[in-house]
Amino acid sequence: MDSIKIFSPSSVANVLCGFDVLGLCLETVGDEMIIKKSEVPGLRITKIEGEDLPFSIEKNVAGVAAKSYLNSFPAEVGIEIEIYKKISAGSGIGSSAASAVGAVYGINELLERKLEKIDLIPFALDGEQIASGEAHADNIAPAMLGGFTLVRDLNTLDIIKLPTPSELIVTIIHPKIELKTSDARAILKKQVPLKSVIKQTANIAGLVSGLYSEDYGLISRSLNDEIIEKERSLLIPEYISLKSSALEAGALGCGISGSGPSVFALSRGKIKAKEIASGFKSIISKLGIDYDIYISKINSNGVKKII
Amino acid sequence: MDSIKIFSPSSVANVLCGFDVLGLCLETVGDEMIIKKSEVPGLRITKIEGEDLPFSIEKNVAGVAAKSYLNSFPAEVGIEIEIYKKISAGSGIGSSAASAVGAVYGINELLERKLEKIDLIPFALDGEQIASGEAHADNIAPAMLGGFTLVRDLNTLDIIKLPTPSELIVTIIHPKIELKTSDARAILKKQVPLKSVIKQTANIAGLVSGLYSEDYGLISRSLNDEIIEKERSLLIPEYISLKSSALEAGALGCGISGSGPSVFALSRGKIKAKEIASGFKSIISKLGIDYDIYISKINSNGVKKII
Repeated sequence: MDSIKIFSPSSVANVLCGFDVLGLCLETVGDEMIIKKSEVPGLRITKIEGEDLPFSIEKNVAGVAAKSYLNSFPAEVGIEIEIYKKISAGSGIGSSAASAVGAVYGINELLERKLEKIDLIPFALDGEQIASGEAHADNIAPAMLGGFTLVRDLNTLDIIKLPTPSELIVTIIHPKIELKTSDARAILKKQVPLKSVIKQTANIAGLVSGLYSEDYGLISRSLNDEIIEKERSLLIPEYISLKSSALEAGALGCGISGSGPSVFALSRGKIKAKEIASGFKSIISKLGIDYDIYISKINSNGVKKII
Repeated sequence: MDSIKIFSPSSVANVLCGFDVLGLCLETVGDEMIIKKSEVPGLRITKIEGEDLPFSIEKNVAGVAAKSYLNSFPAEVGIEIEIYKKISAGSGIGSSAASAVGAVYGINELLERKLEKIDLIPFALDGEQIASGEAHADNIAPAMLGGFTLVRDLNTLDIIKLPTPSELIVTIIHPKIELKTSDARAILKKQVPLKSVIKQTANIAGLVSGLYSEDYGLISRSLNDEIIEKERSLLIPEYISLKSSALEAGALGCGISGSGPSVFALSRGKIKAKEIASGFKSIISKLGIDYDIYISKINSNGVKKII
C-alpha cells in the first residue's frame, strides 16, 4: 500500500451537560486526507484545499500530530499529506481535531502498524494543542472512536464509548462569524455555584442513563447546561431564538457546539431535524450572516479509511 | 388487613461523585414498623423502640410524612404506628428517610391504595424536611425504590433507578460521634472551581456507565469526589486512614455516607468487604470511639412488607 485516503469526521463537544468531557461524532461532514509514502525521506504537507492553513509541519495541526506519531514510531519512508478541508476552521465542530485525528490514523494505517485507535489519541492531542492552546480530547475522542464518547480522565486516557440510540439526529448551523476558542474560554467563570454543580451532575448522569436505556424522554430532560451556556451564548448572535425555535420544532435539546459559534440540536428522527434546520436558517439569514447547515446521523465508527 | 409490618432500609447518599443526586439502598440494616388500623380516629405513634424520638406527630419524621400522606388521602379509620428503630439517628445512613418512607409506604399498603412507590416520595420528603431542614431525596429515593437511584430533578420527581451490578458489596462503619446534618452542610463551600466541576461530571458519567456495563474497573476509577470530601472529612476522625485502609484492602471506592459520620466502601464480593470491615474496626477502636459496622448487599427492592 503506497497511498491511503481517509475520512475524518467533524464532532460536537460538550453536548450541553458534558462540558469538557462529552462529545459526539458526525457522519455527514468531515475532512478527507490522502497520505502517501514517498522515496524522499521526511514528513511533508503537499496540498491543502478548502482552507488557508499553513504548510509548515510545526504550524499545522495535522503536521504536529503526524510528527508526534512519527517521533514515537519512525517511518522508513517519507510521508506526504494532502488535506482536503471540508470542516471550516473556527466553526466549533472539531475542525482541528479532524485534522489531527486524520493525520495520525492515516499514517498508522498506511504503515500497517495496527495500533488501536485509543492508543493514537495522545499523538492527535499534540496536534490539537497547537490549535486551542490546551490539550482537550472532547473532539479528538469522538472523531477517532465515533459515537458518543466520555473522557473520564485525560491523563490516563480513560475514554469510554457510550451507546448511541439509533434514532438520534443532529442538526447544526454554523453562523460564519469569527469566534476564537481562546475568547470562548476566557469568558467562562472560574467558579461555579454548588447548586449549579448539583444540577449539572444530575443531568450528565441522566443523559448517560438515557443513552444506555434508549430513553429519549430522559435524554431530552437531561440536555441542559448549567455552567457555560449563559456566558458563551452571549458570543453567538440570536442564540436564544435559535434554541427556542429548535425546542419548539421538537428538538430533544439544543446548545452550543464546542466553544461555538455553531449551534447544534438533537432530535429523534429526520423529519424533526429538517424542521429545526429550517428554523435555524430563517433566523440566521435574517441577520444577513452567511452560514452552513448540516443534518447528520451520529457516526458510530469515527475516522475511517475510504480507499 | 388490620395490621402490616414493614422493613424500611438504610441507604447511602451521595456515593462520592453524586453529591445530592445519587443514593443506594442497603439490605442488612433497616427499621421495622408496624402500622395498624384503629377504631379511634386520628393518627398516633404508639410505640418507639431503639431511639429516643418524639411521639408528637408534628415533631416525628414518620408522623409528619404520614400526616402529609393522609392530608391528601384521608383514612376512614384511625392509624397507629409502632416504630422499631434499628438505624441510629444521625448516623448518616438515612435514618430519617427510612422512618419517612416506612410510614408512608406502610399506610398506603395497609389501606390497599396501590399508589406507585414513586408517587409516595413527595409525602416522604415532607417528613425528611423536618429532619434535615431541606427536602432531599438522595436517601428517600433509594430507601423507597431500592438499588442505585439518581434524582435528576426533585421538583418534577424525575428519579431514575440505575442498574446494580450483582457483585457489589457495601461495608459501612458508623463511628458514634455526634455530627449534625446542618453542620455538615454549613461546612460546604458555596462555589466550586470549574476544574473540579469537570472532574465531578466526568466521574458521575463514568460511574453510571460502569453500572450499566457492569464494568467494576470503571466503577472504581469513577468513585471520586471533588466537591465535598475535603471539607466534610475534617469532621470525621481518622477519615484519611479509614479511606486508605479500605482502598488497600481492595475497595472499589470509599467515601462519606451522606453527611457522615458513617464511612462506606464499595467492593466486589464479600471477602474484600470483610477485610475492609476489619481495617475500619481496628482504626476506630484504637480511638476508643464506639461504633457499628455493617456489611451488606445492595438491596434492589427498597422498602417492603414483611407481614
